[in-house]
Amino acid sequence: MLPPLLSTLLRHRRHSLRRFVLHLHYQPCKLFSTTSSSPLHFPLSHPTYMIWGSNTSLGKTLVSTGLASSFLFSPPPQSSSGSRRRKFVYLKPVQTGFPSDSDSHFVFAKLSSIASRCNLPFSLVASNSVLKSSVSAAKSVLSVGGHFETNEFQFGMYDLNSRETNTVLRDGEAVSELVSKTLYAWREAVSPQLAAQRENGVAQDSAVVEMLQQCLINELEVEGENEKMNIFCVVETAGGVASPGPSGTLQCDLYRPFRFPGVLVGDGRLGGISGTISAYESLKLRGYDIVAVVFEDHGFVNEVPLLSYLRNRVPVILLPPIPQDMSNDLVEWFCDSEEIFDSLKQIMISAFSERMQRLNDMPKKARDVFWWPFTQHRLVPEETVTVIDSRCGENFAVYKAQNNEFMTEQFDACASWWTQGPDATLQIELARDMGYAAGRFGHVMFPENVYEPALKCAELLLEGVGKGWASRTYFSDNGSTAIEIALKMAFRKFSLDNGILLGYAKNDTTERCIELKVLALKGSYHGDTLGAMEAQAPSSYTGFLQQPWYSGRGLFVDPPTVFMCNRIWNLCFPEGMLSENVIYKDKAFSSRDDIFHKSREESDLYRIYSSYISQQLSQYSGTKGTIRIGALIIEPVIQGSGGMLMIDPLFQRVLVNECRSRNIPIIFDEVFTGFWRLGAESAAELLGCVPDIACFAKLMTGGIIPLAATLATEEVFDSFIGDSKLKALLHGHSYSAHAMGCMAAAKSIKWFKDPLTNHNVIAEQGLLRELWNVELVQQISLHPSVQRVVALGTLFALELRAEGSNAGYASLYARSLIQKLREDGVYMRPLGNVVYLLCGPCASPEICSQLLIKLHRKLDEFSQIKELQTSS
Amino acid sequence: MLPPLLSTLLRHRRHSLRRFVLHLHYQPCKLFSTTSSSPLHFPLSHPTYMIWGSNTSLGKTLVSTGLASSFLFSPPPQSSSGSRRRKFVYLKPVQTGFPSDSDSHFVFAKLSSIASRCNLPFSLVASNSVLKSSVSAAKSVLSVGGHFETNEFQFGMYDLNSRETNTVLRDGEAVSELVSKTLYAWREAVSPQLAAQRENGVAQDSAVVEMLQQCLINELEVEGENEKMNIFCVVETAGGVASPGPSGTLQCDLYRPFRFPGVLVGDGRLGGISGTISAYESLKLRGYDIVAVVFEDHGFVNEVPLLSYLRNRVPVILLPPIPQDMSNDLVEWFCDSEEIFDSLKQIMISAFSERMQRLNDMPKKARDVFWWPFTQHRLVPEETVTVIDSRCGENFAVYKAQNNEFMTEQFDACASWWTQGPDATLQIELARDMGYAAGRFGHVMFPENVYEPALKCAELLLEGVGKGWASRTYFSDNGSTAIEIALKMAFRKFSLDNGILLGYAKNDTTERCIELKVLALKGSYHGDTLGAMEAQAPSSYTGFLQQPWYSGRGLFVDPPTVFMCNRIWNLCFPEGMLSENVIYKDKAFSSRDDIFHKSREESDLYRIYSSYISQQLSQYSGTKGTIRIGALIIEPVIQGSGGMLMIDPLFQRVLVNECRSRNIPIIFDEVFTGFWRLGAESAAELLGCVPDIACFAKLMTGGIIPLAATLATEEVFDSFIGDSKLKALLHGHSYSAHAMGCMAAAKSIKWFKDPLTNHNVIAEQGLLRELWNVELVQQISLHPSVQRVVALGTLFALELRAEGSNAGYASLYARSLIQKLREDGVYMRPLGNVVYLLCGPCASPEICSQLLIKLHRKLDEFSQIKELQTSS
Repeated sequence: MLPPLLSTLLRHRRHSLRRFVLHLHYQPCKLFSTTSSSPLHFPLSHPTYMIWGSNTSLGKTLVSTGLASSFLFSPPPQSSSGSRRRKFVYLKPVQTGFPSDSDSHFVFAKLSSIASRCNLPFSLVASNSVLKSSVSAAKSVLSVGGHFETNEFQFGMYDLNSRETNTVLRDGEAVSELVSKTLYAWREAVSPQLAAQRENGVAQDSAVVEMLQQCLINELEVEGENEKMNIFCVVETAGGVASPGPSGTLQCDLYRPFRFPGVLVGDGRLGGISGTISAYESLKLRGYDIVAVVFEDHGFVNEVPLLSYLRNRVPVILLPPIPQDMSNDLVEWFCDSEEIFDSLKQIMISAFSERMQRLNDMPKKARDVFWWPFTQHRLVPEETVTVIDSRCGENFAVYKAQNNEFMTEQFDACASWWTQGPDATLQIELARDMGYAAGRFGHVMFPENVYEPALKCAELLLEGVGKGWASRTYFSDNGSTAIEIALKMAFRKFSLDNGILLGYAKNDTTERCIELKVLALKGSYHGDTLGAMEAQAPSSYTGFLQQPWYSGRGLFVDPPTVFMCNRIWNLCFPEGMLSENVIYKDKAFSSRDDIFHKSREESDLYRIYSSYISQQLSQYSGTKGTIRIGALIIEPVIQGSGGMLMIDPLFQRVLVNECRSRNIPIIFDEVFTGFWRLGAESAAELLGCVPDIACFAKLMTGGIIPLAATLATEEVFDSFIGDSKLKALLHGHSYSAHAMGCMAAAKSIKWFKDPLTNHNVIAEQGLLRELWNVELVQQISLHPSVQRVVALGTLFALELRAEGSNAGYASLYARSLIQKLREDGVYMRPLGNVVYLLCGPCASPEICSQLLIKLHRKLDEFSQIKELQTSS
Repeated sequence: MLPPLLSTLLRHRRHSLRRFVLHLHYQPCKLFSTTSSSPLHFPLSHPTYMIWGSNTSLGKTLVSTGLASSFLFSPPPQSSSGSRRRKFVYLKPVQTGFPSDSDSHFVFAKLSSIASRCNLPFSLVASNSVLKSSVSAAKSVLSVGGHFETNEFQFGMYDLNSRETNTVLRDGEAVSELVSKTLYAWREAVSPQLAAQRENGVAQDSAVVEMLQQCLINELEVEGENEKMNIFCVVETAGGVASPGPSGTLQCDLYRPFRFPGVLVGDGRLGGISGTISAYESLKLRGYDIVAVVFEDHGFVNEVPLLSYLRNRVPVILLPPIPQDMSNDLVEWFCDSEEIFDSLKQIMISAFSERMQRLNDMPKKARDVFWWPFTQHRLVPEETVTVIDSRCGENFAVYKAQNNEFMTEQFDACASWWTQGPDATLQIELARDMGYAAGRFGHVMFPENVYEPALKCAELLLEGVGKGWASRTYFSDNGSTAIEIALKMAFRKFSLDNGILLGYAKNDTTERCIELKVLALKGSYHGDTLGAMEAQAPSSYTGFLQQPWYSGRGLFVDPPTVFMCNRIWNLCFPEGMLSENVIYKDKAFSSRDDIFHKSREESDLYRIYSSYISQQLSQYSGTKGTIRIGALIIEPVIQGSGGMLMIDPLFQRVLVNECRSRNIPIIFDEVFTGFWRLGAESAAELLGCVPDIACFAKLMTGGIIPLAATLATEEVFDSFIGDSKLKALLHGHSYSAHAMGCMAAAKSIKWFKDPLTNHNVIAEQGLLRELWNVELVQQISLHPSVQRVVALGTLFALELRAEGSNAGYASLYARSLIQKLREDGVYMRPLGNVVYLLCGPCASPEICSQLLIKLHRKLDEFSQIKELQTSS
């Protein structure tokens, strides 16, 4: 939609230079370069807040200092039960203009000054350290002071480790401690990114995040104490909320994995309302909670519109005017503001307690009010409920109350029921797009209307997964509805082609003499609504206990499968497929690619499959019988819910060919397989043949919001054209083609297939590169606990070797393995004895390898335990 | 969740004053006080842009001036076909600090200066006017200049109508015209809201919007011209994007109904990246499109992180440093920047052309790629496709290409398939919340997990629509899935209670000897998936042509209905309900309230209903038969899709009582009726009885995003508890309890029921006030074209009197009426011959009256045409 010009930067060139349209060398930037090897893990035992500014120089450090003063200098706790020690931790991850500017030094020095004015009834121990700095900043420090030592040169930053201290000793046990720290410092008073570049001192996002995590652990996880120490921690950002950090990542993105609640220091000046509100919105857009907005009173009553905007739900705090006289040491100002800061501190402590209370209560409340799908509630004791505080890309932030309260990251390896695709960068893009779509459209109804996101999404679907065959997009809400729509389409087409509708043209509801069934594979699964269930073979989901109305309206054929076992890809025939006189021995493949190879169509096996299918279909052919096969429905390549079974693609090709030759419409259920799940945009591409109708959902929106689409050929569409509305497809849902869903889908479809945004895409092949390390996969296939393995696209799955009651969908056999993996930062959910890993289409192979290594390690532990159990 | 403290403003008080925690007198502010009587309508025939600033004083007016200069002073068009006239329209809706500050005067004066430097080969006609000002600003003008006249005092603002002109005449036809206008001016150089208050000159949002609309029509809709004039228009905002306008409404909200694309003037200073990005995000969050970001180059290379953030999709333009010397008239600077502004202008013109191209192409493309639900495509010619550019609260902005291109507002009277509730204020709140939920969670999987939005939503549902009976929330995607889940719940409960499951305990799939059916009402509708369809009586939707698998698994009873006819509410019995020997004459009600009155339970009718139902049920009672009634399912009070039929509530009460006494679980389908649709939070409240299971969707999320919930009692839940997973309810959808949906629902549920945010709620009664003017409703019920009327809560419906082929679902009889109403700004969709109006729960009765008046007027026209057709 945007002209080519738009991807350019226009820069003024004075006088002589007439060419001012410059192409910036665009580096597609991943917001999060963090690929830290170990999952984030940090304490949540004490109030910890971000201090944000809506702009630079609005007084963030004054607020931090005021809070420190309020926390450390209020009367010490008197009760014998409470600790007599208090600690305020001030962390400044990024400082520029150092050493002449040093906010951590300011807090340290100011606290010391304030302390000297009050006659403290307790001891004060204060320190300020600077951990790492650029070389030029370090040189500058060394030339000024004397007692600093510089350590080795590391990733462009010096281990400066400077430290200054100040101690005021008083009688008694009560001690107030200030720990003030700068994590990274640069010399130039410009933005951190610019300073880092100019001073050759780059700090990766992962380094900043890890160092911050380490400081939090060091200062907040006070071990060996009998009593819980009284600690308060603030992390002060640099500049405005969306100012770039040292790597260029915006700070609101950089610190997002912690998602600490925040205080926003706003702008009380003329025109300051706008910037304050916008900064607030940028923070909300990234999932942050803001507990208070604070700003200096300039007399412009900015608080009135702000409170109105915030609907009184977030308190607004005004600070007295700050003396502009540079000689003023502000100590009097701090003393004047004491009660203001006490109130702010109190708000922050209350909000913290409430958050912790809620987090602690959540498992119980969840068990009280939820009715989880696919869950036997009796098997979920309170302590196994996972409290998810947030998601950042592919990681959950999980709250744990055990021992000390903490937050820990878990990789969402089940892709939240196979929906997830976004990394942290795409998640933020989608969040902004979701706000945009809601702000622009909310939801608008679809039939007979057109609006941009729906049109764009439909176009992208037809150009992408529907390319070469589909011409129409039918939107619905989920895979199950998409399937029901597909079945209605297929049956109409079939009936029309076969003259069945003649007798029903008047849409009568008299007795029906024709019964339509689907041809489907055993082990397939197409959704939970009745229509979708009817198209699948009987299973645990379909019994009277679950669905009294299920009858199973299909011819269900047992398919041949392929999998890796002991490093080799094998073919496995179902019982009864090979008649007694056929001997077929060629069941091993030299590589996975061979399984998909076109040359197999020339093989004997093709003919074996073909005659097998023909034989099955023969019972329903002809025009005499009352039962007719009105559609073929398959999950191409992989049957998901059936246990991540890989069906021999040759068999599915034969199925398609046999049905097409009989004029039976072909439905591909790509709800699970679509959008790069298996390494190509659609599984149809892997199969190398096209359907008449296909269903998509899950990953289509990047996994952020429900939306489904049923694509169809123009011939299928035409079978609903007529003069009466009664001939139209009368199936729809309220939110058909809702704007937010279509917007998310349009963004994700483009994002996943563009090599600029998805580094895994090999453009010329239209495939993802191999994400699962082949050697590791083979290693796992050799493991004694492992029955079979499948690795394809973003999917890695294995079936545990188990017998008797340990087999099947309801098996709890894998439970201990899953539990171990969750503790190791991998959130998995099994399908009976099948455990699987799913990553997003943009995930790096490094992350996938880490997952495989963890899985392999836990398999060892698992099999040791099982052995012990067996032998005992 | 927030402590009481948080709804306060903390303000510093110097020294003496110790009480600083102030309660602000909070005015719950509606962002949009616009309730303009006529729908907005404005031309889209020429490029029209908003000029936004990320802060105040960043050079918005310099950009406007540069654009004007580029547009007016570039070489005049040479071709004989193009117009030789050009017009640049500069509109400044809100100006403070007037007259010393006047941006429209600046543009006017600067253009004149620049013109005097260039030797123009064409005439220039420039004018600057100020339309309205505060009294003090007007006095100030009058004391300075001499030739102004002030008109009457109007709404606190003077009709100043000052005007200055400047003309440079040259030979030839080519004329460049500058029209510069300030719409509202105040004297003090503070924020518009403050100035308006202090100067007693308030301008309502509706006044500002209407005046802007009028200016656009006057200047852009140039009538009587043979050729299309070359016009370019900019609307310059005041301060930053989120600075309050004169009423306090943020400007980004105030101008939202126009949704003109914009140029954002960013901040090139140190720290300016953050404010620029945040301002951009605030605009996106309100659905604006930004075609370029422009800022003054201060040498901080802010463009690099900005381009990275924008992913090169929005161009960034740098202006040369602006001379700080106040004596500099900037003319040289403008000349130096000529090519920069030419490029900016070109970007804006290109983006405009592309937008128009797309808008014009959309109907055709939509017809090519969409497959609309419930739509016979042959009946939708291209010219009837509605192009929806955006939604603002309850209004669509609809693009029309006919004659001159324009945008026109239509009230979404079908509430986009009954989903819509938000006004513009709630829409923006929801947009921010959607961004937040996506940024914080994206989507995380539900079973065995807990996260805040899902828990909050479940709690609110159980405290609200589930109060007094429900204890569990089961989430799914739409009404249809919620119903399928409800049926599974009910059947399990019934089977367990009746010992049916004993034989199925092993979940075998052998022949089933028990067939479960529902008791349901004829005309009911529960969704389009097969399971939901099976629970409804045969209809146009259920024939073989539509769903070959439908069999209708129910006992379908014809219910008595109530409606207004000729000003009176009447009761109408179905055929066969009253046996021959029963004569019942008491069929009129003195008021609608009487229909719901409890005292009716003492009437003869109760006994008549009771024995009628008992008789129906008797055929399936006992333990011998193979068919059993396993659930009652009804839409309480109103059957939506069935034609907005109001069922006698007494009859439904009797149904519930009869089933409860027989241990048949009761399902309420509140998908349409829930969340204030009928004037109470649930229709169950109107009925005065509770179900065992109830389904909700549509309005639950405020109509912004799909989500459904099935609520159930603890007894129903308990029937799924056991030791095996196989006993659990094995039904789920990928996006069960998705965070965005739950977040939207939590916000909307609270918003709709809080009298502070929904002025229609009568807190003590828990009801909405009457939205439909009773007199108007009665008038319509007297209309000769009208068969029957229902008005209840947010619903007004009428059935047109029609016969033969004009009756029924597929009827096109109402078509011309609908078409007329759309042209009158009311977007309706009929149900056969039933036309209806739905408003949101927060809609004002004034808006509802306007809708009724329009409907009444169009009914007159409609019946005249029908009469003519009949007589001819």
